[in-house]
Amino acid sequence: MATFSDKLKSAIQRTGGCLCVGLDVDLAKMPAGVAKDATGALTFCRSIIESTQDLAAAYKPNLAFFESLGPAGLKVLEDLRKAIPAHCLVVMDAKRGDIGNTSQAYAKAFYENLKADSVTLSPYMGKDSVDPFLEYPDTCSFVLCLTSNPSSADFQFQTVANGKKLYELVAQTATGWAKGKKAEVGLVVGATQIQYIRDLRQLVPDTVFLVPGVGTQGGDLQGVLKEGKTRNGFGILVNVSRQVLYASSGPDYAQAARVQAQKLVDEMKPFFS
Amino acid sequence: MATFSDKLKSAIQRTGGCLCVGLDVDLAKMPAGVAKDATGALTFCRSIIESTQDLAAAYKPNLAFFESLGPAGLKVLEDLRKAIPAHCLVVMDAKRGDIGNTSQAYAKAFYENLKADSVTLSPYMGKDSVDPFLEYPDTCSFVLCLTSNPSSADFQFQTVANGKKLYELVAQTATGWAKGKKAEVGLVVGATQIQYIRDLRQLVPDTVFLVPGVGTQGGDLQGVLKEGKTRNGFGILVNVSRQVLYASSGPDYAQAARVQAQKLVDEMKPFFS
Repeated sequence: MATFSDKLKSAIQRTGGCLCVGLDVDLAKMPAGVAKDATGALTFCRSIIESTQDLAAAYKPNLAFFESLGPAGLKVLEDLRKAIPAHCLVVMDAKRGDIGNTSQAYAKAFYENLKADSVTLSPYMGKDSVDPFLEYPDTCSFVLCLTSNPSSADFQFQTVANGKKLYELVAQTATGWAKGKKAEVGLVVGATQIQYIRDLRQLVPDTVFLVPGVGTQGGDLQGVLKEGKTRNGFGILVNVSRQVLYASSGPDYAQAARVQAQKLVDEMKPFFS
Repeated sequence: MATFSDKLKSAIQRTGGCLCVGLDVDLAKMPAGVAKDATGALTFCRSIIESTQDLAAAYKPNLAFFESLGPAGLKVLEDLRKAIPAHCLVVMDAKRGDIGNTSQAYAKAFYENLKADSVTLSPYMGKDSVDPFLEYPDTCSFVLCLTSNPSSADFQFQTVANGKKLYELVAQTATGWAKGKKAEVGLVVGATQIQYIRDLRQLVPDTVFLVPGVGTQGGDLQGVLKEGKTRNGFGILVNVSRQVLYASSGPDYAQAARVQAQKLVDEMKPFFS
């Protein structure tokens, strides 16, 4: 089997971009003609996947939206996972963080049952909370490092040892957890300030970054790609959700999503050639 | 409606203790005669609840174990929630932490769909990630503060501003998020070192603590109760999972669970009278 980084490199070479389409399925935003329920959510996701799968390096289902639909929502998640073709990576956006057999149970849910390539995790409980996920070869567990919301300053920007910020310590420490494992640790790095991406990239030159906050959230795509790639020239996924999903509120939503995805990939291409 | 703290006080007065029974339903540990599947998990939880409901102030379902059973697991969670009588509090142990409409979706899943009184959350993304939960009156969102696992030292014990540790900053900051809200913020505080509970209690004298790590994990129940109550003499929940759930691996598991719960409540009683 190829490592996650290898699969990501292939996906970038195949599509020309590092686009991750975030499946944040908000029922209130379903286009005209799509039911505002679990069945509608599945129809919607399948159409989006169908129309963008040659452009998307990865899809990132957001667990919250499926959980908020109850058991039917988890069934939708299972079904849509099957609709994602093998050449696209699957990142489960879960931001879990627990320990021991609880952490093992989450790892099983995502890596065994849902056959994800990747999961997002929270670092607060430290190494113990990530270790069980690293038992799954060729996966990448993305640990929250620097997020793009205003209150990221509450804790992530606190100065800790040696004048470092907490998010920098998280970057270095979490990257170290993958040593000797057959799985990778990646980092979630928000796109609001390119300077931080540049600094983090120097700190951990070979760690895969998952970058949300481009698109509706206002990040600068070109700056991210200029500063964010790993030393091998790949190693980055840029997530866009709403700009693609809700490009049209009419029955042409899937084609409109494709137009947006194409536009994003076109903007990405020069950075990978 | 009564606040969460009021409901907790009533529950402690009713049972004599502050016992929270953690529903960490591990299929591998199902007693003889109980099926190792979703149906078995429901039967098991219902029996435990039935036999301990006059002793338990609260129940804490652990989301990971239900999620690892797929859609059927979420259905079990819904059904077992209905089996918990109104006089017991329900804490959903989810340790979620995300922002914006994602956080809203999780809050809806737990506080609307599952009608929880309380949820556990991770602090890493700061205030934004907790705010949507505080829109639900009379609930208590327990934010991870100090956990009882070895790698809590990775980040929680880092020294931040003014010589404070990160977990102390989390305690003070997160407690402040509840200001002006109709909901409470509580803290998850591990029981491995009584000294820390004492210090935290001085820092935030009126914040409800959820204390795991007593029982199988080895915490000192009497020390916790001596140091951990709020100024009103209540305001603490001590979680015990395995010691109660898996007290017997035979068909008498529910009665054995009751014996253990009774033992714990007897040990708690002197601290609340």
